[in-house]
Amino acid sequence: MEKWRAGRRFLRFSSCTTPRSNPNSHTPIPMHVSGSGNYQNWKLHHCFRYLTGNRVPIRASIEKGKGVYGNGVRFQFRCFGSASTTVPERNPSFSMLSSDDIEYFKGILGEKNVVQDEDRLLTANTDWMEKYRGSSKLLLLPKTTDEVSQILNYCNSRCLAVVPQGGNTGLVGGSVPVYDEVIINVGLMNKIISFDKVSGILVCEAGCILENLITFLDAQGFVMPLDLGAKGSCQIGGNVSTNAGGLRLIRYGSLHGNILGVEAVLANGDVLDMLGTLRKDNTGYDVKHLFIGSEGSLGIVTKVSILTPPKLSSVNIAFLACENYFSCQKLLIEAKRKLGEILSAFEFLDNAAMDMALNKLEGVRNPLPPSLHNFYVLIETTGSSESSDKEKLEAFLLHAMEIGLVSDGALAQDINQALSFWRLREGIPEALQKSGAVYKYDLSIPVEQMYDLVEEMRTRLGAPTKVVAYGHLGDSNLHLNISAPQYDEKILAQIEPFVYEWTSKHRGSISAEHGVGLMKANKIYYSKSKNTVQLMASIKKLLDPQGILNPYKVLPHSLST
Amino acid sequence: MEKWRAGRRFLRFSSCTTPRSNPNSHTPIPMHVSGSGNYQNWKLHHCFRYLTGNRVPIRASIEKGKGVYGNGVRFQFRCFGSASTTVPERNPSFSMLSSDDIEYFKGILGEKNVVQDEDRLLTANTDWMEKYRGSSKLLLLPKTTDEVSQILNYCNSRCLAVVPQGGNTGLVGGSVPVYDEVIINVGLMNKIISFDKVSGILVCEAGCILENLITFLDAQGFVMPLDLGAKGSCQIGGNVSTNAGGLRLIRYGSLHGNILGVEAVLANGDVLDMLGTLRKDNTGYDVKHLFIGSEGSLGIVTKVSILTPPKLSSVNIAFLACENYFSCQKLLIEAKRKLGEILSAFEFLDNAAMDMALNKLEGVRNPLPPSLHNFYVLIETTGSSESSDKEKLEAFLLHAMEIGLVSDGALAQDINQALSFWRLREGIPEALQKSGAVYKYDLSIPVEQMYDLVEEMRTRLGAPTKVVAYGHLGDSNLHLNISAPQYDEKILAQIEPFVYEWTSKHRGSISAEHGVGLMKANKIYYSKSKNTVQLMASIKKLLDPQGILNPYKVLPHSLST
Repeated sequence: MEKWRAGRRFLRFSSCTTPRSNPNSHTPIPMHVSGSGNYQNWKLHHCFRYLTGNRVPIRASIEKGKGVYGNGVRFQFRCFGSASTTVPERNPSFSMLSSDDIEYFKGILGEKNVVQDEDRLLTANTDWMEKYRGSSKLLLLPKTTDEVSQILNYCNSRCLAVVPQGGNTGLVGGSVPVYDEVIINVGLMNKIISFDKVSGILVCEAGCILENLITFLDAQGFVMPLDLGAKGSCQIGGNVSTNAGGLRLIRYGSLHGNILGVEAVLANGDVLDMLGTLRKDNTGYDVKHLFIGSEGSLGIVTKVSILTPPKLSSVNIAFLACENYFSCQKLLIEAKRKLGEILSAFEFLDNAAMDMALNKLEGVRNPLPPSLHNFYVLIETTGSSESSDKEKLEAFLLHAMEIGLVSDGALAQDINQALSFWRLREGIPEALQKSGAVYKYDLSIPVEQMYDLVEEMRTRLGAPTKVVAYGHLGDSNLHLNISAPQYDEKILAQIEPFVYEWTSKHRGSISAEHGVGLMKANKIYYSKSKNTVQLMASIKKLLDPQGILNPYKVLPHSLST
Repeated sequence: MEKWRAGRRFLRFSSCTTPRSNPNSHTPIPMHVSGSGNYQNWKLHHCFRYLTGNRVPIRASIEKGKGVYGNGVRFQFRCFGSASTTVPERNPSFSMLSSDDIEYFKGILGEKNVVQDEDRLLTANTDWMEKYRGSSKLLLLPKTTDEVSQILNYCNSRCLAVVPQGGNTGLVGGSVPVYDEVIINVGLMNKIISFDKVSGILVCEAGCILENLITFLDAQGFVMPLDLGAKGSCQIGGNVSTNAGGLRLIRYGSLHGNILGVEAVLANGDVLDMLGTLRKDNTGYDVKHLFIGSEGSLGIVTKVSILTPPKLSSVNIAFLACENYFSCQKLLIEAKRKLGEILSAFEFLDNAAMDMALNKLEGVRNPLPPSLHNFYVLIETTGSSESSDKEKLEAFLLHAMEIGLVSDGALAQDINQALSFWRLREGIPEALQKSGAVYKYDLSIPVEQMYDLVEEMRTRLGAPTKVVAYGHLGDSNLHLNISAPQYDEKILAQIEPFVYEWTSKHRGSISAEHGVGLMKANKIYYSKSKNTVQLMASIKKLLDPQGILNPYKVLPHSLST
């Protein structure tokens, strides 16, 4: 299996973080799908090889002048599944980097961690999808909170804009510069500070790679309450800053529940020590939540403390067929009630998704007899007792079939069957890529209305498009995909802004888990009220009066400049 | 069983919200302890009868001039377990209520919901412990968010201070006026707006009484992720505003994880619609968290949406003896690992607590043979399968005994045994009350260090005090109680500020779940860093520039005036 390595980075993506195809950049080449063989941790990970593994093609694309990015140059970007992202002019109140600045930073960080090397800057300026590319001339690698504080204090006094960066695995252009912002990458701050085996509370620096934390905790008999396809590259500080969702949300909830403490450095260099390690602390406003999901625009997260649950030994998977969407909903209610505490995944796919997976993926097979069903559901349980968990799942399935919620179903008997069930669900993005152009949307919509959007979209678009729906039903997270023979402005105009308006009307979210970044900064009103966005802007102004932290991102450009 | 009813209120308190004894007010009279017989919901609730059930004694105490409270009059309050609370002078920038104001409010709310009746005002001005009493001349009862908005808009323009009030069951003086603040009670906003049985998401108005929500959800096959002794009186808006902890925190986590959306009205009347019903929404700063736990000082919560888990059918209880605190810790690790997803309580008591319970409570008996053990642990499981859950617990207990963590233990065979186990644990506050004066502290301390404080305190104080420790070990929440023959300034001086300093030194919290209110406003630095408190003050200034919302509370008085 070939892997992309760009410097220290090794990217692995599961379906929910599959890159959006971008006609203006190199197309990702789907590679062989592998499953790591551990039964406790056997989620499939898709591996995409990028041409950027070799540096020449990047330079080639720059030389070709396509999607030119540069200091002070206005650029537009267009990709499937998102209308044009207009970037505002460079904010002229930001200073230009001087040689004195660089000398100052060398005085703080030492020669080695003040990076001006072109190749390393190219990597740091570019997001992994090559959708966004800045033109920063400086990458800083602090090793301590105090260094971050000194850097920011100086940048603030000089009005130098900065972009905080972790593993740079974001999907919305939040972790790379737009223009010449100084890049502050916290990757060298990667120490585990403490782990309390009694309470399961881990304290670590922001630059710890998620997979390293998972491995560390595994040896202690605990798990991270967060798992992502990009775990081999993404860093916990970035996860917290983007309020990453991931595969375990249905079971363990969001980071707002699991992050017990945060240390963050404000724009002016002030260090906010909110690094509590307590499950209960009701002494005043819990301001750490401002830093969870604010994408580095309010401060740089330097340390976190996390509540980690114990590792459980038993995993079971079922693949089921339902005749209609109502049965899927009803099955979810039943699963929550009957499986309750052991339910760890509840995924769904419609027959268009199933059909595409079966036709486009190599080596997959339908685990059920080949009659046509309208919907398919994948249920996973994770618990502490192998025999009783299996018994519980079997009793639940028997009951679900008896009351007619499930038309047919299969229970994985071994790791290979389990992997093949997940392959069908997680292979859909790859199948879609193979089917032509694809417009992708990642939406949160109340479960009861969720499929109405799919049906309306089908009626609205007609042939030759195919509307394919799947997602994390247990989290109300729909992956809506429109497959077409080729990219077509007219199709896009039929989809957007309709899809955002529909989502907004049903009190949904236009970004379930990927954040706002640069990509959706001007679309935030679809999911947030005007007063709420105004409050966000006021808080930004309060914490970062000059707006030096991650400018042009998160807030609509009308409010952020 | 006699119950206190003051107007619409019926107060019930479990041990963790047992009132602190107050020598300056009427002493609560512990009543017969009852258990509601439902096996799914059988937590014991202690019922305290207050003399305030009859209005005369309240007036008598006012006439006696003890603890005089009044408009513009500086007062001091002293009670066990808290050093003197100094209240600042009335803020002279606040306007005095005029007859024009009252006419204006009548125009918004109608005659009936603008309350000037003395008896009703007396109830609304006084907290249930009679520790705090204001002298407001006006109680407003809005029925809609729009009414709250109009009231606040007017109060802000007139610079009239207000105190938001729900069930008025707080323990830190947060829900009653300090001086003449206008009381805005949201109790009439008590409608359930929607419930989604698929996702388990409940949307309701802030004035819904917690017990009514529990009852409603029970009929739907769901449970609130929050349960409190005061559930018969407390309101969900108040719960959210104080980030209430309660009995289910070890299982379902804090409200920051379970509250999906909030509607709040700012000081200027602006309505913030953040009433999302989505598990995943990463569109910008999640500012609703500012309103969870800010005790009504940033805005009035008017609606909430809550993620509710399904009701599970099986509950099991074990009462165990451990020889040392290290074994208790180790047992907690094992319980989390082996019981994992079904663990719903992990409580501990030391032998001083057990001794006091056995000697002072009527009708209790030691479930274990009467040899002396140093520590006792109560473990509860809640799950979806009666047979497998019991089997799992039994296997865990066998293993714990085999490896020497547990010296002795008993597993409840029926509801009566289960109730008697809980009676021992939950009866401790009542036993303490019967033993003389008691200094009570509600602290969060990392589990590993928690008992060190108890031992240090024992060494420090010596005879004739008894240091009694118990609490929610699974949540790192220690209830530290010092029992003495009578109240003594010298003992208090030995305890405070030592107990706060010790807690602070170990990065603990001086308020695990009760909030800051008026009582601890000046003690906040023990648990929050200077920069964090400064940020809190800046956020307060941003959202409520004139400081009209719940003045004198939460923030240290040096920053709030």
